[in-house]
Amino acid sequence: MSDIERDVRAVAERAREAAADLAPLSRAAKDEALQAMADALVKHADQIVEANAEDVERARAAGQSAAMVDRLALTASRIEAIADAVREIVDLPDPVGEVVRGSTLPNGLELRQTRVPLGVIGIIYEGRPNVTVDAAALCLKSGNAALLRGSSSAYSSNTRIVEVLRGALEGTEVPVDAVQLVPGVERDSVRHLMRARGLVDVLIPRGGASLIQTVVRESTVPVIETGVGNCHVYVDAHADLDKALAITVNSKAQRVSVCNAAETLLVHARVAERFLPRALGALRDAGVTVHGDDRVRAFDDAVVPATEADWTTEYLSHDIAVRVVDSLDEAVAHIREYSSAHTEAIVTDSQSAARRFVARVDSAAVMVNASTRFTDGGEFGFGAEIGISTQKLHARGPMGLQEMTSTKYVVTGDGHVRE
Amino acid sequence: MSDIERDVRAVAERAREAAADLAPLSRAAKDEALQAMADALVKHADQIVEANAEDVERARAAGQSAAMVDRLALTASRIEAIADAVREIVDLPDPVGEVVRGSTLPNGLELRQTRVPLGVIGIIYEGRPNVTVDAAALCLKSGNAALLRGSSSAYSSNTRIVEVLRGALEGTEVPVDAVQLVPGVERDSVRHLMRARGLVDVLIPRGGASLIQTVVRESTVPVIETGVGNCHVYVDAHADLDKALAITVNSKAQRVSVCNAAETLLVHARVAERFLPRALGALRDAGVTVHGDDRVRAFDDAVVPATEADWTTEYLSHDIAVRVVDSLDEAVAHIREYSSAHTEAIVTDSQSAARRFVARVDSAAVMVNASTRFTDGGEFGFGAEIGISTQKLHARGPMGLQEMTSTKYVVTGDGHVRE
Repeated sequence: MSDIERDVRAVAERAREAAADLAPLSRAAKDEALQAMADALVKHADQIVEANAEDVERARAAGQSAAMVDRLALTASRIEAIADAVREIVDLPDPVGEVVRGSTLPNGLELRQTRVPLGVIGIIYEGRPNVTVDAAALCLKSGNAALLRGSSSAYSSNTRIVEVLRGALEGTEVPVDAVQLVPGVERDSVRHLMRARGLVDVLIPRGGASLIQTVVRESTVPVIETGVGNCHVYVDAHADLDKALAITVNSKAQRVSVCNAAETLLVHARVAERFLPRALGALRDAGVTVHGDDRVRAFDDAVVPATEADWTTEYLSHDIAVRVVDSLDEAVAHIREYSSAHTEAIVTDSQSAARRFVARVDSAAVMVNASTRFTDGGEFGFGAEIGISTQKLHARGPMGLQEMTSTKYVVTGDGHVRE
Repeated sequence: MSDIERDVRAVAERAREAAADLAPLSRAAKDEALQAMADALVKHADQIVEANAEDVERARAAGQSAAMVDRLALTASRIEAIADAVREIVDLPDPVGEVVRGSTLPNGLELRQTRVPLGVIGIIYEGRPNVTVDAAALCLKSGNAALLRGSSSAYSSNTRIVEVLRGALEGTEVPVDAVQLVPGVERDSVRHLMRARGLVDVLIPRGGASLIQTVVRESTVPVIETGVGNCHVYVDAHADLDKALAITVNSKAQRVSVCNAAETLLVHARVAERFLPRALGALRDAGVTVHGDDRVRAFDDAVVPATEADWTTEYLSHDIAVRVVDSLDEAVAHIREYSSAHTEAIVTDSQSAARRFVARVDSAAVMVNASTRFTDGGEFGFGAEIGISTQKLHARGPMGLQEMTSTKYVVTGDGHVRE
């Protein structure tokens, strides 16, 4: 066993111990710890900013873009906002202990299915150090120990932040090892985390498609896939074209770098002539480059010819693929072939078209006459989210605190035996 | 790509197509197909018995025990019983379309989270050919296409049964490819099924610990672990010893070959002297061999010395490991170390002891003053079960039709866009 494997397994084992002590704690005990975490972040903001400066310096020296450097940078006011997000989690209800199902069986046995923590959750994430706090707080609130494996580009910040959070836990009932950073910045440390089956209950990768695919392929620990969104807007033959225009532009351009932004627009042939010239103009005005099939290009010379790759790509940029389809079923077939099953929208005034689209499209969220941008834990009223699951097992769509739990059956009798 | 890989992927692709057509079908359409399947089994019972005779002959020639041969054998009346089990599934409610959560958001968007089928479910199982029918029927009722990979020892029976089931689907709205046998009897065909990520949504292995471990280790398709049960009965210092005796004997000996049978008995030192002599006698009377630690052996010379292996073994036989513990927490620690997290029972009259045990034991089911044998979909009132999950993700404990579904968010607006 290499040093790094030993180190990773050691933190996972401590997390497992901590999870056992954390699971039965009351909401009050967990909320007090979260409050202490928020206060400590603000109190030690200077030290965090200082550590962050090292990451920022390294990023600058490596020639990262100003936008990337800005994403990484922490200031006192940003840390204040991060602490406020923790205080919002304090206000959310505790999912643990909720009775999901209950009954008294014919033989008098009392059956209750109650929510319990998953145990140890590993989060592998890229980018901004605020995710470190966010993930730790959501895990703690749902009674789970957090094993955090952030990007090496934020290693100094993450190390200091986790020290501050652990320091805050010292005076509380929550075990300090409920929040730990996975040691090491090499890829190896991720690999050992992915192989810690039996110690880690679930891994949640948050980041780009390649990170997520690596984890899905290599992990023996169960994984919840998040976030890749090749989302579609379908404008039906019976669409209100004003609504269709607003939804198309909002889905694509309101914020292009997020997983619930639309990447492909499908337009029914019967409304193409009335809709596409307006839509192509509005998209251009929003700074969006259109990649279209031949029928789309017939309307506008500025449209770039779409290749097969355009239908599969999650652009996350000011680009959109556009195609004309001859029927709702052709739109559904296109979506079934190319979508990442995150979010698809139909714009239509036809009840039967909406019903057929909803029934046939197999994605985490299906919007009827609404922007794809609404697929979000905050928008759905969950208060917070750890990610958006694009898989079917365990959780699908925005994952709030409830999705960070499992259940346990508790069966109470009075000497009951089976005949 | 080898021939067998091509064949396995081809059936998986057909299953995927079938799943898309099956998902939106009404309960009535699915129930009609189930009814047709039940009728066809009875009608073609002779042909099934004939095919089964080949498997039985092969098992006999291979020198299998009479008990194993009997487990494999089908008769007209056994087929009648299998068909009746399908008719019982007809009577169960359809989980698909159930609204799990729903609200109207502040902006007027209508949010509904509804149950949808998982898609394609692969079942890898050993032993009896009745599982073929049972798994196909449960998948169909929950709107899922079934890919069945039974034991090579039942290959002739399974092949004929699946032909009969598919024949029955021909006159119905359910696509014939909703029920398919995975081709090939070699291990290779299982391997390719485990690698069909993107085509198969979930694999459920049903069988012994080694089958389940292989699938968990090698599958890139998400897996639901089922069935391994190293279950414990803990007799607390405050136990009613009559109830404790009945629960111990029932948990161990009512049926020894099943996953919810107890394999270890933990006895609090304070009641050991009053309880153990009675328990050891009653277990002996039930034909059970006791493997005990030194404190247990002090009560009875016939007790076999327990080794470390006894605490970890799922005997599935007339054997039990017995240990004396000095506290409830020591019992919990033993369970946390050795249990497969299936079912544990406490016998106690103390509210606080029961509460602590329930909170600290992290298993799919925790029994208070009841036999471990009650962990069962039928006993829990689910009507049927596809297995008992011992993992925390997606489903935990007995899995009924509900656990064979995912969910989808449907969000309805009137031109809503995000600010």
